[in-house]
Amino acid sequence: MGNKKFVEAITSRDEDFARWYTDVCIKAELMDYSEAKGFIIYRPYGYALWENMQSFLDKEFKKTGHQNVYMPLVIPESLFLKEAEHVEGFAPETAIITIGGNEELQERLIIRPTSEVLFCNHYQKIISSHRDLPKKYNQWCSVVRWEKTTRPFLRGSEFLWQEGHTAHATEAEARKEAFDILDIYNRLGKEFLAIPFILGQKTDKEKFAGAVDTFSVEALMHDGKALQSGTTHYLGTGFAKAFNINFQDKDGELKPVHQTSWGVSTRLIGAVIMVHGDDSGLVLPPYLAPIQVNIIPVMQHVAGVLEKAQAIKLMLEEKNIRVSIDDSDKTPGWKFSESEMKGIPLRLEIGPRDVQNNQCVLVKRLNREKSVVNLDELVDMIPNILREIHETMYQKALDNVQLNTKETNDYNEFKQIISKNQGYVKMMWCGKRSCEDKVKEETQATSRCMPLKPEKIGEKCPVCGDEAKHLVYYAKAY
Amino acid sequence: MGNKKFVEAITSRDEDFARWYTDVCIKAELMDYSEAKGFIIYRPYGYALWENMQSFLDKEFKKTGHQNVYMPLVIPESLFLKEAEHVEGFAPETAIITIGGNEELQERLIIRPTSEVLFCNHYQKIISSHRDLPKKYNQWCSVVRWEKTTRPFLRGSEFLWQEGHTAHATEAEARKEAFDILDIYNRLGKEFLAIPFILGQKTDKEKFAGAVDTFSVEALMHDGKALQSGTTHYLGTGFAKAFNINFQDKDGELKPVHQTSWGVSTRLIGAVIMVHGDDSGLVLPPYLAPIQVNIIPVMQHVAGVLEKAQAIKLMLEEKNIRVSIDDSDKTPGWKFSESEMKGIPLRLEIGPRDVQNNQCVLVKRLNREKSVVNLDELVDMIPNILREIHETMYQKALDNVQLNTKETNDYNEFKQIISKNQGYVKMMWCGKRSCEDKVKEETQATSRCMPLKPEKIGEKCPVCGDEAKHLVYYAKAY
Repeated sequence: MGNKKFVEAITSRDEDFARWYTDVCIKAELMDYSEAKGFIIYRPYGYALWENMQSFLDKEFKKTGHQNVYMPLVIPESLFLKEAEHVEGFAPETAIITIGGNEELQERLIIRPTSEVLFCNHYQKIISSHRDLPKKYNQWCSVVRWEKTTRPFLRGSEFLWQEGHTAHATEAEARKEAFDILDIYNRLGKEFLAIPFILGQKTDKEKFAGAVDTFSVEALMHDGKALQSGTTHYLGTGFAKAFNINFQDKDGELKPVHQTSWGVSTRLIGAVIMVHGDDSGLVLPPYLAPIQVNIIPVMQHVAGVLEKAQAIKLMLEEKNIRVSIDDSDKTPGWKFSESEMKGIPLRLEIGPRDVQNNQCVLVKRLNREKSVVNLDELVDMIPNILREIHETMYQKALDNVQLNTKETNDYNEFKQIISKNQGYVKMMWCGKRSCEDKVKEETQATSRCMPLKPEKIGEKCPVCGDEAKHLVYYAKAY
Repeated sequence: MGNKKFVEAITSRDEDFARWYTDVCIKAELMDYSEAKGFIIYRPYGYALWENMQSFLDKEFKKTGHQNVYMPLVIPESLFLKEAEHVEGFAPETAIITIGGNEELQERLIIRPTSEVLFCNHYQKIISSHRDLPKKYNQWCSVVRWEKTTRPFLRGSEFLWQEGHTAHATEAEARKEAFDILDIYNRLGKEFLAIPFILGQKTDKEKFAGAVDTFSVEALMHDGKALQSGTTHYLGTGFAKAFNINFQDKDGELKPVHQTSWGVSTRLIGAVIMVHGDDSGLVLPPYLAPIQVNIIPVMQHVAGVLEKAQAIKLMLEEKNIRVSIDDSDKTPGWKFSESEMKGIPLRLEIGPRDVQNNQCVLVKRLNREKSVVNLDELVDMIPNILREIHETMYQKALDNVQLNTKETNDYNEFKQIISKNQGYVKMMWCGKRSCEDKVKEETQATSRCMPLKPEKIGEKCPVCGDEAKHLVYYAKAY
């Protein structure tokens, strides 16, 4: 890497967003490519982001009565073929084991692209009475979907995720589950990632293969493209019928269960990079950040400096703040750049004079705001500063969504706006697949979702002139 | 399941240990079989055991400077073939993806049976200077090894584990790492699973494919068979040379790194079952137990009973004790059996008269010891009781090891003892593979390990009469 500064080494965000993105992924040491195309290595700093998201979500899932399980990595082909729509959606992207223990397998094994059929097959065995319901299971694992064009975190042949699979006695209860989880995803965005999501329902064209209804949280990236960041599905009784998952209800009748499934993935790491990052690298929201305060001693060879840095670290760690000290032999300037590249929310500089004056310098990653802080006040201040940074980041991202959400009742205007790549465009829709297809063909924009809170900005579908049924958020998307 | 009692439904442990084992796995709802042979479903209660072990280990790993990463699920065949000994050991058990996205792959992809080669390939890229060392990485994942005969948790085509992979500047440092981790595994046994391990070094015959030295923790099951419960390997520089992982040392010289790898798996769940379980089912050590106290209301329809049960639950949860209430419509007797089958360390019974008298009945799973406890004293007592149970369980398991460890300098006596299936037999060994092979052929016993604290009970190898070099623990093993 020589002596070049980190900041010189990455592409400018507005010059080439795609290259900026992969530069950040690599330079912030989030990931590396592996020898198998489309399969990435999650390096410690990138994996720590995922671990922190896991810890937020796992707590919420358990609090709401979900239990973790682990289903097999593989699905026998005959099992995979049981639910027709589901197969149609996933079969083209599967990876298949044909050899095991040096022998050709009698039945091919699909590496799970998602595990609906495995859960269904298990539920069929363990559910027989209303007493067995609801079943609210979740699993943390990786899945494989064969992809031709791949991008770190956003689209890969393997990714890490959680997949929830639940079975309920009634439609109402299952639908509530799909909404409750969407709310947890939304809070993950708001409280943890500082990302404002649009919550909505997918059109039939965009919904999950095998679902009755799909709901999603959508985020807007800095380049004006949208990113589907999490989905929940009300599956109805389709899987239950294909897999014979019936229960004897209180009224004595045998009924199929109503199911949901839902998931978020390491894609969210991509969202964090593209919503908050800048030309100096990552900018991490404080609650997500694996390191919240990076202490950089200045003139660290002078007696007392490193000792004081250590003392500050211990003080902060007692308050559960995640702290590191960079006492390597790099120059302070290099360390500053590296700390910025890694998006650490606060940099704390301390040199000999600071030690004398019982103070340090705090620099916010977000806006490089500097302040001199008395060391006696530091420990009480930091949690507040981190909260403020979180709120500022969320507000900034929200402002960006609002600034880049347009609405129109004119299809030509729609095309013009979309061509500028500036975020969401709201437009009414008749509900016909043909209009949705036309929009996609002519503009590359896809319907992101129909917002959960119904909005109405016109009477007609601007594409065909028929009566409008829904408002749709359109955008070009990852 | 009808009205049959749980306890009637399982095989007696001394009648048919193998059947007893699978009965417990199924009846305690730890796992279920899947449609793919050798791949099991980890049900919530079984997965919770693994989560708790993870949480113990992950904390220890991080405290000692290890970082979690995630490597790809697949290894391109050419990469897999780079280290010869390693290939020889693992190639026969691999599962291979040959089709992806409906197309035959140009290069076949091996599902990781273990990830040494993936870590090595990555280390080669990111290590160039002594400043980059040590690298201490760990990952939590599942691996696939094709097995013909499988048993839940003990041997399966897929299992969950952690695999640590580290790179160091010197042999001494790498060897220390292998020992430090062995110590963490040992403490997991002693402090968490209430399992006493024998720590030792594997013979060349039994060591890991590609290792210079393998160390293991061995446990003794109730049926007298041993279970290898965790291993750490000093890999030397063999992988480094095959993968070109060199660093410039402080002296300016280019040197290969010294590596280690180490892992424990869901096999440990099997160990817990077979060390502690009895004819009523699981017996869980308290710190591992997902539920530590199971409150069973008696005559729960009487006003005040369920309310008091709830109040006790909250009180205990405030002290971080894991509590459940069984307020289902089953009979108390059924609930007692179920609580025993699941091995919950403490059952807390509370009925109308107890409520009146401000008391409850506590029953220990371990020995069914009953006591009447004043509710005002309960919260302070429980942590002590749990600790006592843990210590009693550990001591009981340790007594069992001591009772079932014999030693001899006579090979005929060795054969006699081994034929009784009663645990370890210590015997001196000359160090020759031929003697080890002979013992295995003639007795089915394998060398478990050479204990870390050298012992000497004779001068000659009782098999060949040559000079003895090591003491070996032999046993039949899983």
